[in-house]
Amino acid sequence: MQVITTKAEMRRLVRTARAYRSAQEASRATHASGAGGSSRADGVEPGPAVVGLVPTMGFLHEGHLSLARRARSECDLVVMSVFVNPTQFGPEEDLESYPRDLGRDVAVAEEAGVDVVFHPSAAEMYAPGHATWVDVEGLTEHLCGASRPGHFRGVTTVVSKLFAVCEPDRAYFGSKDAQQALVIRRMARDLDQAVEVIVCPTMRESDGLAMSSRNAYLTPAERAQAPVLRRALVEAEVSISGGERDPRVVVAAVVGRLAEAPSASVDYVEVVSTTDLRPTDRIDGEVLVAAAIRLGATRLIDNVVVSPPG
Amino acid sequence: MQVITTKAEMRRLVRTARAYRSAQEASRATHASGAGGSSRADGVEPGPAVVGLVPTMGFLHEGHLSLARRARSECDLVVMSVFVNPTQFGPEEDLESYPRDLGRDVAVAEEAGVDVVFHPSAAEMYAPGHATWVDVEGLTEHLCGASRPGHFRGVTTVVSKLFAVCEPDRAYFGSKDAQQALVIRRMARDLDQAVEVIVCPTMRESDGLAMSSRNAYLTPAERAQAPVLRRALVEAEVSISGGERDPRVVVAAVVGRLAEAPSASVDYVEVVSTTDLRPTDRIDGEVLVAAAIRLGATRLIDNVVVSPPG
Repeated sequence: MQVITTKAEMRRLVRTARAYRSAQEASRATHASGAGGSSRADGVEPGPAVVGLVPTMGFLHEGHLSLARRARSECDLVVMSVFVNPTQFGPEEDLESYPRDLGRDVAVAEEAGVDVVFHPSAAEMYAPGHATWVDVEGLTEHLCGASRPGHFRGVTTVVSKLFAVCEPDRAYFGSKDAQQALVIRRMARDLDQAVEVIVCPTMRESDGLAMSSRNAYLTPAERAQAPVLRRALVEAEVSISGGERDPRVVVAAVVGRLAEAPSASVDYVEVVSTTDLRPTDRIDGEVLVAAAIRLGATRLIDNVVVSPPG
Repeated sequence: MQVITTKAEMRRLVRTARAYRSAQEASRATHASGAGGSSRADGVEPGPAVVGLVPTMGFLHEGHLSLARRARSECDLVVMSVFVNPTQFGPEEDLESYPRDLGRDVAVAEEAGVDVVFHPSAAEMYAPGHATWVDVEGLTEHLCGASRPGHFRGVTTVVSKLFAVCEPDRAYFGSKDAQQALVIRRMARDLDQAVEVIVCPTMRESDGLAMSSRNAYLTPAERAQAPVLRRALVEAEVSISGGERDPRVVVAAVVGRLAEAPSASVDYVEVVSTTDLRPTDRIDGEVLVAAAIRLGATRLIDNVVVSPPG
């Protein structure tokens, strides 16, 4: 396991890994050319090395590790970035207190099959006078985009930079951040970034709470209340699957359930289209029911994707 | 000479060219390994193919061709894009009337050593629902950015897309568009785009007029007046080199000279820092003197870079 801290070294490593695999392929093809062309005795498909990237802010949990294991199963080189990106935090948000534990992260990442951890400093990632931003319009205006102005601009900019440095063929994101995944997929399409954006299921604690590095902030009393978010969203799923078509009814039920947790306050509960994230008047097709709450000082998000009965 | 119209085919061609060169290298290295390692008898440095990109809007003139020749001398594969990018034109600007002549462009590009012309349609470049923009703040607020709101956002977005599709090692831009070159260089740095931005000298007609596809719009009477722009800027250069430190004096002299052309109206004349393009109060170091005028319906720009005497 290597930990790399500079962009130049990270790019060099990826390119070397690709070229080495290519050179192996070329050499094999050359040597095999007298004996039946490019087919290979070992049954492995020839081609350049496949590079997978798992972008994280560290303090790894099972959600991150499930992405790493998926990448391991699909890629020749698995890079995990661990970078608490300052540009996606608002001025009043938790940049300073965001939990960090690089030593543990490296150990568990290696266990999950990661080849390289990319861990740049903020000064390494952002040169003095940084002035360029990648912005996805529309999709970023709703849900967390409305609550956290500038957040997604920071996410899309740093992910673009990570894509440029690591040159991945595949990049892995979790479903808990459903809006983030849609925004990044749109960005990759719109900017022709040569990467396949792969979205993986949310990992949960045994009581249903979606895994998140921010769960570490919760006091025991808050932690005991936290599963209400998942419970409320599962009830929304059941309600829509059972035929409820009015998003106002669904939202009211979720808000009512959340009110049972004494420390919870609602940031948003919305029923939106899964394609453009616009609020819907009537549930006619697949929708995303997404919610954000505060439990004390901690902001938690979760969501379900559900279609009404045919 | 190939003309490619799809992004997928363009990317495939560049990657194949790179892999072919790499495979050749690998094969040579393998065969030479018994006889002194990786040194090569033909004296050519080993390594992957170097890809050069010359982004243009077509209707090629000597300025574009000088970029292509420079790329030819430095790269293994030279790609020229010919794409009239709609997103960099304002609603009142000349998108529809912008001159086009693909047949001639392909012929002269081939003559200059271009290997591939990339000529996508607008629908190929921009998918329905395109919503992602690359924006360089600060540098784009002055000069042409102030006159043409949204122009640079269109330029940086399409150039990012061209970089993503063509994966060039080097990209070539002209000095006539001094602000554009600075903006693109900043973007490439800020987004870690793995490309060297190379800025080449402005090509001029024998009377000093900077070559531009838009010169084709000029009536004979306007064409006769057009060299006043270059003349006024050269006088500014002489004045600053001679010790003038007050930008207001320099600007007034340029505006006065431009007023001698009866069809000319001034869009802007500014003396700005070459690093951040901010207007300067006193000429203490290298400055860019940049001007934009209208001659009838045609907008022309030009500039000089000059330092005061030591």
